[in-house]
Amino acid sequence: MVEKRNPIPVTEAIERVMKYAREGEVETVRLEEAYGRYLAEDLRADHDVPPFDRSPYDGFAIRAADSAQAKLDHPVEFEVIETIGAGQVAAKTVQPFQAVRIMTGAQIPDGCDAVVMLELAKQYERDGKTYMSIKRPFQPGDNISFQGEDAKKGDVLVPKGTFINPGVQALLATFGYAEVKVARKPRIGIFATGSELLDVAEPLIPGKIRNSNAYMIQAQAIRSGAEPVYFGKLADDIDICFAAIQKALPQVDFLITTGGVSVGDYDYLPAIYERLGAEVLFNKVAMRPGSVTTVAQLDGKLLFGLSGNPSACYVGYELFVRPVVRTRLFSPKPYLRKATATLMADFPKPNPFTRFVRSYVTVENGQLTAAPVGMDKSNIVTSLAKANALMVLPGGTRGFAKGDTVDVWLLEDEEGSDI
Amino acid sequence: MVEKRNPIPVTEAIERVMKYAREGEVETVRLEEAYGRYLAEDLRADHDVPPFDRSPYDGFAIRAADSAQAKLDHPVEFEVIETIGAGQVAAKTVQPFQAVRIMTGAQIPDGCDAVVMLELAKQYERDGKTYMSIKRPFQPGDNISFQGEDAKKGDVLVPKGTFINPGVQALLATFGYAEVKVARKPRIGIFATGSELLDVAEPLIPGKIRNSNAYMIQAQAIRSGAEPVYFGKLADDIDICFAAIQKALPQVDFLITTGGVSVGDYDYLPAIYERLGAEVLFNKVAMRPGSVTTVAQLDGKLLFGLSGNPSACYVGYELFVRPVVRTRLFSPKPYLRKATATLMADFPKPNPFTRFVRSYVTVENGQLTAAPVGMDKSNIVTSLAKANALMVLPGGTRGFAKGDTVDVWLLEDEEGSDI
Repeated sequence: MVEKRNPIPVTEAIERVMKYAREGEVETVRLEEAYGRYLAEDLRADHDVPPFDRSPYDGFAIRAADSAQAKLDHPVEFEVIETIGAGQVAAKTVQPFQAVRIMTGAQIPDGCDAVVMLELAKQYERDGKTYMSIKRPFQPGDNISFQGEDAKKGDVLVPKGTFINPGVQALLATFGYAEVKVARKPRIGIFATGSELLDVAEPLIPGKIRNSNAYMIQAQAIRSGAEPVYFGKLADDIDICFAAIQKALPQVDFLITTGGVSVGDYDYLPAIYERLGAEVLFNKVAMRPGSVTTVAQLDGKLLFGLSGNPSACYVGYELFVRPVVRTRLFSPKPYLRKATATLMADFPKPNPFTRFVRSYVTVENGQLTAAPVGMDKSNIVTSLAKANALMVLPGGTRGFAKGDTVDVWLLEDEEGSDI
Repeated sequence: MVEKRNPIPVTEAIERVMKYAREGEVETVRLEEAYGRYLAEDLRADHDVPPFDRSPYDGFAIRAADSAQAKLDHPVEFEVIETIGAGQVAAKTVQPFQAVRIMTGAQIPDGCDAVVMLELAKQYERDGKTYMSIKRPFQPGDNISFQGEDAKKGDVLVPKGTFINPGVQALLATFGYAEVKVARKPRIGIFATGSELLDVAEPLIPGKIRNSNAYMIQAQAIRSGAEPVYFGKLADDIDICFAAIQKALPQVDFLITTGGVSVGDYDYLPAIYERLGAEVLFNKVAMRPGSVTTVAQLDGKLLFGLSGNPSACYVGYELFVRPVVRTRLFSPKPYLRKATATLMADFPKPNPFTRFVRSYVTVENGQLTAAPVGMDKSNIVTSLAKANALMVLPGGTRGFAKGDTVDVWLLEDEEGSDI
């Protein structure tokens, strides 16, 4: 138990947490349920793509050599001996100056080595037979999609840890993944503390506020790929808190409490960590908001004591919880994606500690821009709705002006960052 | 029924579809289930924020006037008559030179008009009473968060049609939305056509490919906010197709078929639209891939005939289906978000028609960059997995060079665009 609160740098705090990050477990889901999950194994081609030489167009498959003499004033005629659609295979073998009418996607018939596009051929009937003629020569390989030109059997097409988007879903189908191994969603237990908290359905009464952090954190948990388990609201009573937390811990992969970590007379979390025998990794971070964020570990299980202040709670989740969640999801890039942007408004406040400003990032003329949303008072919940990034203003800086380049960490992004 | 296929510009095709776009229906969900849905009504403040004057710090509430004479060499002493935590209301009324010990978030006691931060006060006991002293004066209003300074009761904080992100979720909780009115997810029926299609679990056999479009489209439907209903695979038989489509139509808001819209001999969709009595809005678009994309309407219900080619199918969904889905979700910005980016590779192909190139967009030094993913042959499925944008190269252009500025439409984005 740390007695005195020594603020540590944000990067060091994240490192202390990430020492306890580990890869998660694998579960199998049906392909229809895979969208939005994370691959728990590499996606490999189970066959060449295309799986056979095929036609990319509607047209006629021919032996290219037969077309060598074709000119504008000297059409060459082919007998059309068969028609094959996608999914069909030619039954006959072409002889010289014979052709097969072929649909997009169909397999090139044996003996053929080029495809004439429909619009370049003239088709006609004569004596009950079908013919077509062309006025230019074709080379072997013309208009053929060759077996394996997109991917070879065994190639890793998408690495483990990747978010399954619609394109990955298409690949899973193409390569026969009727069932998909995905990362099990880590379960995050959530407690809200504070006797000032009302349930959402309760009418407001003097001195009380509705419990918003628990709902916000549940949504952040889902966004990050986890499964939230809300255990409810705890009163400001240390024995009740301790018993509830002790009971909840075995049911979850991580535990979050909001509130109760400050230096107020009703902030019991430090005492609870001590009673649990948990090791406090830090209880003060040189950052705004969220300086009182406390993280502890018990037998390798992380307990996150986030601030009761909504903005600090929000930032605490994204900085400390998200990367351990993404590591469970096998992501090699568990951190928020980082970029630089042009600041669109003055931000005159000095930054004694690293400041995370809820911001709105967009693109103007190809350039990323960032602007703080709302006033940056840490008790203002309204600005959270518009934020899609955290602007990171380093500690020790004296304020920033419109036009300055600033670091931004992107919140609505599946790609992430490895640092 | 359009007999001859006249390609129309992409923008006109989108306009013809959007004539049939309309707002959707409202359903009520519990707050816990609201994340990821779309607001079907404006989110309004049901009370002032803060709801009362409150302390942003741990400290002492005082009457500022009493501190007027405080100086470094002349501390002013206050008797601490009470302690209140967040959620508590002071029971006593302060008299001159009395103070109340107050926690972060607690209501300012009647009569007090300033808060002294804990670290600026010296606290001590004398004769069984508690005192504190300060060495500087405070002004009325110092360190008070005033009622309504963040939001006034009745203010629209988030407009109808907004995606519910974690911040919006927090606002919903704060303003008592235990139940939330959200847009009902439109149901999109999906059929895959083509006898060349194997089920995902089937082994590959010559001439056949696995059905990937149906799974890809289901994921795209979910990403856009809709609920996919997969009706399975249709054989290349017009009567079977017709009966299945006729039966499915009443069960869904939109119907998508993939394949069967080309000019091949097995492309039945045009005939099916005719037999249904549906009006074909267009059956050829001046674009690559997806020029054969066909859209029809029957009694105002849209039927999307997307290409069987995976890339064309993918693009067709994002261009034509997504905006009608987002309109159902009350979004005022139903189209893909647009931006400009610096092209990071040569793209020498001429563009007789508008070309949509699957691309990867990222940020380098604050600048949006775009690069095509994979070769842009429309039968290559592997590149879809990496694409997070469509690069839009206008028809009539002769190719683009590295460093050129290009238009990009962003695929992984909840914000959208109004044009």
